[in-house]
Amino acid sequence: MSTIPSSEAIVAALSALVGPQACLSSDAELKPFVTDYRGLYVGQAAAVVLPGSTEQVSQVMAWCYEHGVAVVPQGGNTSLMGGAVPEPNGQAVVINLRRMNRVLDVDTVNDTLTLQAGVTLNAARTAAEEAERLFPLRIGSEGTCQIGGNISTNAGGTAVLRYGNMRDLVLGVEAVLPDGRIYSGLRGLRKDNTGYDLKQLFVGSEGTLGIVTAAVLKLMPLPRASSVALAAVPDPAAAVGLLGEAKKAAGQTVTAFELISGPALELVLEYLGNVKSPLEGGHAWMVLIELTSGGSSESLDQSMMQILEAGLESGLVLDAALAQSVADAQAFWRIREEISDAQTRTGGSIKCDVSVPLSRIAGFIEEASDAVRALEPQARMIVYGHMGDGNVHFNPLRPKDRAAKEFLAANYEQVSHAVDSLAHAAGGSISAEHGIGVAKRDDLTRFKSEVELELMWQVKKALDPKNLLNPCKVLPFSKG
Amino acid sequence: MSTIPSSEAIVAALSALVGPQACLSSDAELKPFVTDYRGLYVGQAAAVVLPGSTEQVSQVMAWCYEHGVAVVPQGGNTSLMGGAVPEPNGQAVVINLRRMNRVLDVDTVNDTLTLQAGVTLNAARTAAEEAERLFPLRIGSEGTCQIGGNISTNAGGTAVLRYGNMRDLVLGVEAVLPDGRIYSGLRGLRKDNTGYDLKQLFVGSEGTLGIVTAAVLKLMPLPRASSVALAAVPDPAAAVGLLGEAKKAAGQTVTAFELISGPALELVLEYLGNVKSPLEGGHAWMVLIELTSGGSSESLDQSMMQILEAGLESGLVLDAALAQSVADAQAFWRIREEISDAQTRTGGSIKCDVSVPLSRIAGFIEEASDAVRALEPQARMIVYGHMGDGNVHFNPLRPKDRAAKEFLAANYEQVSHAVDSLAHAAGGSISAEHGIGVAKRDDLTRFKSEVELELMWQVKKALDPKNLLNPCKVLPFSKG
Repeated sequence: MSTIPSSEAIVAALSALVGPQACLSSDAELKPFVTDYRGLYVGQAAAVVLPGSTEQVSQVMAWCYEHGVAVVPQGGNTSLMGGAVPEPNGQAVVINLRRMNRVLDVDTVNDTLTLQAGVTLNAARTAAEEAERLFPLRIGSEGTCQIGGNISTNAGGTAVLRYGNMRDLVLGVEAVLPDGRIYSGLRGLRKDNTGYDLKQLFVGSEGTLGIVTAAVLKLMPLPRASSVALAAVPDPAAAVGLLGEAKKAAGQTVTAFELISGPALELVLEYLGNVKSPLEGGHAWMVLIELTSGGSSESLDQSMMQILEAGLESGLVLDAALAQSVADAQAFWRIREEISDAQTRTGGSIKCDVSVPLSRIAGFIEEASDAVRALEPQARMIVYGHMGDGNVHFNPLRPKDRAAKEFLAANYEQVSHAVDSLAHAAGGSISAEHGIGVAKRDDLTRFKSEVELELMWQVKKALDPKNLLNPCKVLPFSKG
Repeated sequence: MSTIPSSEAIVAALSALVGPQACLSSDAELKPFVTDYRGLYVGQAAAVVLPGSTEQVSQVMAWCYEHGVAVVPQGGNTSLMGGAVPEPNGQAVVINLRRMNRVLDVDTVNDTLTLQAGVTLNAARTAAEEAERLFPLRIGSEGTCQIGGNISTNAGGTAVLRYGNMRDLVLGVEAVLPDGRIYSGLRGLRKDNTGYDLKQLFVGSEGTLGIVTAAVLKLMPLPRASSVALAAVPDPAAAVGLLGEAKKAAGQTVTAFELISGPALELVLEYLGNVKSPLEGGHAWMVLIELTSGGSSESLDQSMMQILEAGLESGLVLDAALAQSVADAQAFWRIREEISDAQTRTGGSIKCDVSVPLSRIAGFIEEASDAVRALEPQARMIVYGHMGDGNVHFNPLRPKDRAAKEFLAANYEQVSHAVDSLAHAAGGSISAEHGIGVAKRDDLTRFKSEVELELMWQVKKALDPKNLLNPCKVLPFSKG
């Protein structure tokens, strides 16, 4: 192969393909695209391309493949794992999909939504709602993140318990392969067993096997009723017990079941200032429960009251508040949703996004808390998240009197390792919904078997033999 | 590579690995394993191995891989597509999983069922029910088919509308790779984004990429209430309209929505003899609707009555019968379930298992019926199946006065081709749930794009470079 072209040559060639306005190359233009949204990862690129069509993506990819130029796909650039920005050295081309933001079709008979990959999650949800349907994915970055990114990271969030992950919500995908070929799988079928289900290659592979350019998503009936409650529970084991009772009593209407630790609630209340908890006094653990259905809110409230009253009687619940209005429900949810920002503002949190089987989650939280306290006795245990899916964000936070930098320097590696090791030992995952990117790439060598890493590389090499698409992400080098 | 060993050498080597009693080789012993259950495909094998453990599967596979011997994985041998028997020429080894039939774990907190691949679907459902849980997959062959086969064919059936296909029900998989390596992914996690989701490779690839040896399956709350009705509708378009109304009124309680054509009902009634239809008079089209929930049957019956009454008023429904008892419900379902056997008994049906988007299914049925009648005006239109998923079994049947053989010889190819082409043109699939096997393998060259076939071969070659695992299945030769 000839040597890799210069940055100037790359810009010239790609400008010719997509037009000069859609090919950015000055440092100032590049900066927001090569920096991740927390500012932790800053990379380098020869150009940022903003294609207007699948054909342009294909042309750019084919050119880069032929000339040995690395390509980094990017949607809303909201990755927490450095997965959407280029490496610090080199002259990759970032392909950002933001201009490909058209909703192509809303089919209310087939209950499908067809759209380009650059549509934001929020816009997708809105398009569904305008047609009286629900697109159920619900994550914090929904105003910014894009459907293409949601697919390539198999996004999760707060409604997985009821509706599944993004993988469960995608019926068809169009993707451009590393060498520029277009895989056209924009089918809206619930059943199709005609050979390998190729779209699965592009879901959750973080843009290392292809760039998703369009998709067909499932729509659901728009729930007309909901019931939301916040309940204090003695401990995580009681929360798990309560979830079991809720599933028994309310079946698939149980839409969200979120755990909130006492320190997480305190942090949010402090951060929000004038907001009060709906529950009196301090509690070590709480759960936010949401039921939704196509029926009446009264009957859901009745179900919820039954669950809570039975819980109070059996001791699984210590105290509970039922949202009396939509405003109440939003206020309860706000407490949950602001935990992330409150941590960012405070600084100094060690983010572990783990999942374990529900039958082991209570034990895991206890063991992991002990392990952290052994290292840092005064760490605030910000533990919260999607308990219904066995997924907790286990984020030890600096003590109030310690500087973030110092706390992180002293503890980051040891705490992450201890928490991940305990999750793994409990049959769990070291990254439930945030993915791998570069942040956890090398951890995979510790937590995946040889065979798993070999298989990942076998698939990667089959589709991207030159290792040019989102290189240095997801797959650890050592098995390369 | 050295030449392929003789049958005797294969039997000697494999007997040494699994014991002589678990390695069959006489013609009489081999016959049931090399013949598919309809007797349409009869293959040839050097041996049938009945391993007792994953390690034995691994050892057998490693030996075969090293010596260039083809391996055909087999579960309950209920494939309709010739997917589970060896080719007519050659000396393949059939690995049948029937001895690996242990339920390993039922976790009612995590709501998961862990089992070996040789457990029958029926046994899996029973294990779940004994723990007051539902494993929702429901297909005709459930007494015989095995979980490993259900996974490798991504089985569908009558509850997909509510619970999804097998792919949606599998959390973790253990599989032996073509070269004998063991992929250990028996995790029971709802969220896990640590690299490529490797289990997807083994779901729906019909045993061409690995042999599934064990799995972790999702369990659901056991529904405590159900409501079943049979409704006559003017045409398939009305059936689609009624489904939309049912989803609006009853949301996710809509568990099954099955279409039955008039000729299909007539055939079953004739076949069953003393059974009567719950509806008076003859109707061109009917739907069987099932609602289930964790609530009360009374409230489901109310929902069902609302749906049916609104349908009667709007003209979507011509007549309807609500099951008044469990026995009634079973009788309604029996009519639907016996359609397949009634056809087999009658002989001379051209089976097309297609799916199209729901918004196009009515048009498709009309066009396909016209196409068939143009070829064979008196064909009986046995059209039925899982309309809720856009999946119909479109099976033109010989006229009463024509011999099966003659009808099939005159029409099989042209009818299949016409129906498949129309489904494809409507954005549909030529095999919704039956898979490809050998029966539809070469059709893929007509209905898949070059890129899709290339990608399938890229993945196949990455995992099975010698093309030894279930060779000649699924992937058409032409792109090899």
